[in-house]
Amino acid sequence: MEFDHAGIATTDAAGLRSLFGALFDVETAHTEQFDGLDVTFLDLTNGYFELLEPLEDGTIRRYLDDHGPGIHHVALATDDIQGALDRAAQLDVELIDAEPRPGAWGHQVAFLHPKSTGGVLVEFVEH
Amino acid sequence: MEFDHAGIATTDAAGLRSLFGALFDVETAHTEQFDGLDVTFLDLTNGYFELLEPLEDGTIRRYLDDHGPGIHHVALATDDIQGALDRAAQLDVELIDAEPRPGAWGHQVAFLHPKSTGGVLVEFVEH
Repeated sequence: MEFDHAGIATTDAAGLRSLFGALFDVETAHTEQFDGLDVTFLDLTNGYFELLEPLEDGTIRRYLDDHGPGIHHVALATDDIQGALDRAAQLDVELIDAEPRPGAWGHQVAFLHPKSTGGVLVEFVEH
Repeated sequence: MEFDHAGIATTDAAGLRSLFGALFDVETAHTEQFDGLDVTFLDLTNGYFELLEPLEDGTIRRYLDDHGPGIHHVALATDDIQGALDRAAQLDVELIDAEPRPGAWGHQVAFLHPKSTGGVLVEFVEH
């Protein structure tokens, strides 16, 4: 699998878009409001930063309350997300999403539980 | 800039090498002992996972004590690391390393302070 994006929880997506744009010389590839979040993808050429700012209560707001802003998850791209989930289940990895579901930018996504993956919240994404 | 790697703090690099290898269908690209750490790079084709297991006291062991295992930093590749640091300083980003220093795998590296970058520990790396 390949790197797709690093997801970053933030209370100030506009500020990070501006700072990261200048600091890393990257452009905004896509932005939308999705699932109670302001979502921005910054183009790293070989992947993205995904900035996630909560617009209402939910998992990202709770994450920010518990941990503060920072790296929330890492997403890997696959062209067979159901196959990737089946392989994870065979390896006794706990699935947050047993089946793919619609994610931002029209992608199919599914998350693995970090307690099964060394504390790393892993997302599979199929474009 | 482009994604280079996601650095993961772990107490069980051997276990994660095995699990991530099977789960993500990735091979070990490089492994070494560096700066008191067992360091493994797993090949994501367009970048790497860097697994960091402490062999002695230091920043990664302290991170594990404070936060538990998980995503520790994100590294971006540049062909002008000093220029990237100069630009960061101009943007009033606090630098952990004002000058590049030798990192794992023979690369030059420098870190930015996460309090300046939305809670994200950012590493610049020049191969």
